[in-house]
Amino acid sequence: MHSLEALLDRAHGRREAGLADYRTFLSIPSISGFSEHAGDVARAAQWLADYLTRLGMQRVDIIKTPLHPMVCGEWLGAPGKPTVLVYGHYDVQPIDPEYEWITPPFAGDIRDEAIYARGAADMKGSLWALLTALECFETPPVNLKFLLEGEEEIGSPSMEGFLAAHRDRVEADIVLNLDGNMHSAEQPSITFSLRGLAYFELEIWGPERDLHSGMFGGAILNPIQALCELIAGMHDAQGRVMLPGFYDTVRPLEAEERALLAQVSLTEEDWRATTGVPASWGEEGYTILERIGVRPTIEVNGIVGGFIGEGSKTVLPARALAKISTRLVADQDAAAIRAQLEAYITAHAPAAIRWELRELSHGPGSTMDLHSPFMKTAQAALTTVFGKAPVFKREGGSVPIVGMLQQALGVDSIMLGFCLPDAFIHSPNEKQHLPTLFRGIDVYIHFLHGLATRAE
Amino acid sequence: MHSLEALLDRAHGRREAGLADYRTFLSIPSISGFSEHAGDVARAAQWLADYLTRLGMQRVDIIKTPLHPMVCGEWLGAPGKPTVLVYGHYDVQPIDPEYEWITPPFAGDIRDEAIYARGAADMKGSLWALLTALECFETPPVNLKFLLEGEEEIGSPSMEGFLAAHRDRVEADIVLNLDGNMHSAEQPSITFSLRGLAYFELEIWGPERDLHSGMFGGAILNPIQALCELIAGMHDAQGRVMLPGFYDTVRPLEAEERALLAQVSLTEEDWRATTGVPASWGEEGYTILERIGVRPTIEVNGIVGGFIGEGSKTVLPARALAKISTRLVADQDAAAIRAQLEAYITAHAPAAIRWELRELSHGPGSTMDLHSPFMKTAQAALTTVFGKAPVFKREGGSVPIVGMLQQALGVDSIMLGFCLPDAFIHSPNEKQHLPTLFRGIDVYIHFLHGLATRAE
Repeated sequence: MHSLEALLDRAHGRREAGLADYRTFLSIPSISGFSEHAGDVARAAQWLADYLTRLGMQRVDIIKTPLHPMVCGEWLGAPGKPTVLVYGHYDVQPIDPEYEWITPPFAGDIRDEAIYARGAADMKGSLWALLTALECFETPPVNLKFLLEGEEEIGSPSMEGFLAAHRDRVEADIVLNLDGNMHSAEQPSITFSLRGLAYFELEIWGPERDLHSGMFGGAILNPIQALCELIAGMHDAQGRVMLPGFYDTVRPLEAEERALLAQVSLTEEDWRATTGVPASWGEEGYTILERIGVRPTIEVNGIVGGFIGEGSKTVLPARALAKISTRLVADQDAAAIRAQLEAYITAHAPAAIRWELRELSHGPGSTMDLHSPFMKTAQAALTTVFGKAPVFKREGGSVPIVGMLQQALGVDSIMLGFCLPDAFIHSPNEKQHLPTLFRGIDVYIHFLHGLATRAE
Repeated sequence: MHSLEALLDRAHGRREAGLADYRTFLSIPSISGFSEHAGDVARAAQWLADYLTRLGMQRVDIIKTPLHPMVCGEWLGAPGKPTVLVYGHYDVQPIDPEYEWITPPFAGDIRDEAIYARGAADMKGSLWALLTALECFETPPVNLKFLLEGEEEIGSPSMEGFLAAHRDRVEADIVLNLDGNMHSAEQPSITFSLRGLAYFELEIWGPERDLHSGMFGGAILNPIQALCELIAGMHDAQGRVMLPGFYDTVRPLEAEERALLAQVSLTEEDWRATTGVPASWGEEGYTILERIGVRPTIEVNGIVGGFIGEGSKTVLPARALAKISTRLVADQDAAAIRAQLEAYITAHAPAAIRWELRELSHGPGSTMDLHSPFMKTAQAALTTVFGKAPVFKREGGSVPIVGMLQQALGVDSIMLGFCLPDAFIHSPNEKQHLPTLFRGIDVYIHFLHGLATRAE
């Protein structure tokens, strides 16, 4: 094995050439949510499989699922060393509203040390960085498996079935999950806790067709009004979620955890500057970071009903629809949330409308062991490359695969990804800060090298 | 002047040939709400002006307004007879959702005694019927003026200015307003009271861009949630509107009026069958017809925010928008409603969002004199043609021009139009029942003939 210095030298020499690969990867509009992009998702899978083959994996397969394919790879040539399962996803979010993009969303325009593209930060960047890091090794320093999916952005509907059917392709000592982020370009961080997600559509029907609001209004419950009343009742005045039993299994936040979270400074002014809101909001008795990190939430992701065009149309609509998701913390059961939401709607929906609740996806939350040798190795790698020890974070976002792998294989995930908070992921003008991503390559080299030497 | 019998014979002989004219009129997609249809609106105006010229009007003008033109006509060759101002509109509602139309919305397909087209019932049908009726007279039996607008479906924004600038083109003894409807094909009716309308857009802004709901949710007030809470608070549990002062000028419903309204039978079962709702709804203490006829309402005509496409996107949206309109009864001031709505939102909008209320249009409600000779003539015409005396109705819909002409000229309107309640106006598959419209031609002949002979 090359010395660490030689590996890092090689990585630094390859940065610019590697960027061309990264931009090729970004040019594929692998939007998993729209069926017309299924061909692009497949192209991205093939691009990754070809890359893994070039890296000398002993086995590379593109495995079909009911929707988008899974890319699996395997190299088991380091007996006695740990086996690391690398998890990532190669699908991206939709780009709407397209007109808000300053440069085309799949062009990978570079300006001010950042590369702009849908997926640049979430998460083709970190995936490319890991592949680049591996390219610097003559042979991999540890045993490797790859699980790269194309459905993360739509809630990983095929993952549970895949894990049950292909357990041998994923069994490992630890998962290196690339779908993570750093607190800032200066301050590295490790996420050790993730919220779960359950995503629903709630549809309300009133009259059988759109009606004239003057001729019928006043004697018919408007489905939009009924939907708004149901949504309004989902929080009380203190910002608490009113689904029956929602907090039953949520562990109280202990003083030690509060202290850990309070290491990260985030003021009301920071929050306003980052988001543009006139004031923060949330559950009484918790700080901003506690609200987004350790408390469960319910959020309306979209709503539509009636006439939404230019000008005025006096319609009393036949239906209204909302997309509603909950973020769950460890010990909350994602499957139970559906029952809670149904119980809430059943209790509050008026007789003058019909409704239907449809679950689109769900995944568990998770908390990782802070003291494992893998976590220590990651901590050391970040400390060395950033010149500063990482802070430990609870993350508001959901990476359901972490909980799924915990449940299916009993292994933790090390979240090591190099997206920054201002990366505009899921928004127009998504960007990846390049100096941070280059550091990411170094961190991956340190981490893999560290796992190999620690095991020696 | 021809005898009444000769006039009616002539009308019956012309029905089929006249239908070709009606279908030509319907083929023009004169949607006033969409700027790309401005040329079609102008074509419809020209079609009407040509028709009026053919009818021998002494003066016909297409008069420009800031938006869509007004078609005016004049024939003052019957000294000593009353002057009737014929009001109608030649613009139509948008057609969305287009895919729900069984036959193309401007084809004028005829099936089961009805003609299907956008505008067939609202209100090109009655306008065509009145023109056909006039064609049967050698010369008009009364003095005539025409006020035919192209902006009714967008709230008549140019009308107030037009009436102030062109008073001489509209001064008359009575208005014959063709924008009305019959209770059913068997039961004629006269609307003597109309609700006013004020139409608004309420926009809510939270963060400056769409955010990831997992990374930010819980510490930011979702603009959709804020909008839903504001909408939910606009009614109390008894279905009363909660804007401050909303009911202050609403006259209590007296026993005599209740008795008049109760002449028309409408059961809960009728209502469910007509609309398809599982149950009626509305303000406690009022019947269905009272709720839609004499009580003011507030209605959400449309709502939109966040991700509304296929599947799931975990977005915390930057904005949300609702279209909200109020239906007002006589003595409620449409201009005051804006202040009430602003006061309500100011009192209830949380500090964590920004909002803006925009008024799109407003028009007053009105009540007509039931005992005028004009009303008696209309009553007699309907009784003769339908073989049944009309019932008198308060109408939930708004025809703001009625109140405007009352305020500007001090004249009442006789509402005589032949749209039926199941005409699907403003909805896909709008239709006009042809036997009722043919009766309408006869009613207009009786009415105009009656006005001339009554005045002799």
